[in-house]
Amino acid sequence: MKIALDAMGGDNAPGINVEGALMAVEEYGDISVELVGDSEALWKRLSAVRNYDKQRITVKHASEVVGMDESTSHALRKKKDSSIRVAVDTVKKGAAEAVVSAGHSGVTMATALTVLKKAPGVDRPAIAVLMPTVKGRFLLIDAGANVDCKPENLLQFALMGSAYYKAVFGVTEPKVGLMSIGEEDTKGNELTKEVFKLLKTANINFIGNIEGKDVFTGLADVVVCDGFIGNTILKVSEGLAEAIMKMLKAEISGRVASKLGYLLMKPAIKGFKRRTDYDESGGAPLLGINGTCIIGHGRSTSKAIKNALKVANQLATVNINKVISGEIAMLQKNIDEREQEIADS
Amino acid sequence: MKIALDAMGGDNAPGINVEGALMAVEEYGDISVELVGDSEALWKRLSAVRNYDKQRITVKHASEVVGMDESTSHALRKKKDSSIRVAVDTVKKGAAEAVVSAGHSGVTMATALTVLKKAPGVDRPAIAVLMPTVKGRFLLIDAGANVDCKPENLLQFALMGSAYYKAVFGVTEPKVGLMSIGEEDTKGNELTKEVFKLLKTANINFIGNIEGKDVFTGLADVVVCDGFIGNTILKVSEGLAEAIMKMLKAEISGRVASKLGYLLMKPAIKGFKRRTDYDESGGAPLLGINGTCIIGHGRSTSKAIKNALKVANQLATVNINKVISGEIAMLQKNIDEREQEIADS
Repeated sequence: MKIALDAMGGDNAPGINVEGALMAVEEYGDISVELVGDSEALWKRLSAVRNYDKQRITVKHASEVVGMDESTSHALRKKKDSSIRVAVDTVKKGAAEAVVSAGHSGVTMATALTVLKKAPGVDRPAIAVLMPTVKGRFLLIDAGANVDCKPENLLQFALMGSAYYKAVFGVTEPKVGLMSIGEEDTKGNELTKEVFKLLKTANINFIGNIEGKDVFTGLADVVVCDGFIGNTILKVSEGLAEAIMKMLKAEISGRVASKLGYLLMKPAIKGFKRRTDYDESGGAPLLGINGTCIIGHGRSTSKAIKNALKVANQLATVNINKVISGEIAMLQKNIDEREQEIADS
Repeated sequence: MKIALDAMGGDNAPGINVEGALMAVEEYGDISVELVGDSEALWKRLSAVRNYDKQRITVKHASEVVGMDESTSHALRKKKDSSIRVAVDTVKKGAAEAVVSAGHSGVTMATALTVLKKAPGVDRPAIAVLMPTVKGRFLLIDAGANVDCKPENLLQFALMGSAYYKAVFGVTEPKVGLMSIGEEDTKGNELTKEVFKLLKTANINFIGNIEGKDVFTGLADVVVCDGFIGNTILKVSEGLAEAIMKMLKAEISGRVASKLGYLLMKPAIKGFKRRTDYDESGGAPLLGINGTCIIGHGRSTSKAIKNALKVANQLATVNINKVISGEIAMLQKNIDEREQEIADS
């Protein structure tokens, strides 16, 4: 499987991207990477590496780079030869199966949408992010692609998330929860109350409303919400985890015994970090487009890039967006049949 | 200052309520508590206490109790002699200055609203919750009273939160941030974009949008959002903090050195818990009604009750709702004057 990697994307590009690509090719026999970006800079990095599979790491030149602070519309209109655009184009042309970028996430998303287009039947593609729970992980969808949503959008998010979880983790009936502020059926805001009704009759394993306090216990495999809520949950969690570690450290400093204790606990803390680390999940797919697109964190490490390439490979292998279109077509068929029955009666 | 305490409210009532009241009276010379609930049960508990100021702890009988799972409308209509209702009535009659309940929070809120009514000029009373930051704390408003909001509601939340922070912490110009999913002025959903414009011209120290990752760094003193978002942030934070501690413990178990490390770190962990503990903040006020009402957590300990009584005393002393009405009247005056100017020109 060939994956186009936006080699200029991310805070530490192109270094971490080249390293991540080398790691992925070394670890996974079925991955090839096309590094897209400033070919001179990329070849310089590659030429310093003694041993790597030259068949499976290639370079494609792109003359421009999208900065992290650029406006999305400007980048879309003016930078037709940016590394992210060329990487996405590679997928469009069929020269690569998937694209990965740790660059400007808004631009990555917009470019993927514009060039690859929505998958058949999908109204609003959505970002799906894996987050850790005490037992394992849950999928949060939408994590920020759509800030204002209609009930039907969230129904599609639920279908896409369920299909993803099934395809990637082999869980036959993923438990789908609707993010709300009370477990009871009647709790929520106008939007979630409407969504609740739709999810109840959808062909998924809907377990009802789920509250913020329960998402990390692993009650649901897939948590559905609009992109404003999802992005807030994602960022609040990131901020809180960092704050907790800072507060713990502040309490430790000045306490000699605690310092020693912290040193002794280091392996446990490392293990904990491995469970919660962004690097492990690699990146978040934009689901519901014609092609596989993984959006990485701007702060990605080489390990995060390696894992993003792994996820891209997995999703392209199962052909996730075809699966999703199939699910949505089935849903539409059910709705049409029900309407027909009502019309006939 | 006399405070009516719903002695039957909370998971461990009435025990923790009686204990909390005794602690508050002992610690704060200016607090008296009226315990409201099953007088027989309450007197039984009190009679077992050797020494307490009998002038400052009194009992008022209420024959009914609202269960944690009861529907709000049922409790409001049918349980006119519930401990929470009688406690709120006490404030209405002027026999107490404030009311505290760790019982059914929906019923507490609805009862306070129905009996005490909205403060002049306030459209939607809101719940304000203090949350810890690396440096200190921030106030989250609305934390769950209003799930669907208009832009004007959030403007009032900002004014109420700012007034509260000023009055309780003596900060002259609290920094007010608008919860959004990007720092830039133009980021957000339809609601927050409208609110942004209103806050820019309001008479508060508005610092712009604030993202989830920054709320715990102490960037803002007051964070404004609708009640659905606020409640989600509150519960996700609660859930994540618990999950992090569980995951750390799971990593520690099985590692002998880490276990020893954990023991050595205990004082630091205790210090950390003190900073983040719900017990410390006591409870959350419902701002914007005629009277002071503090909503405690169902899982309140006696210490949480003591602190809730302290907060009730503080807010009643500064007459927070009069302050709020004053701020809102001033805002309305400014709006009217501006409209008059436009009409005149």
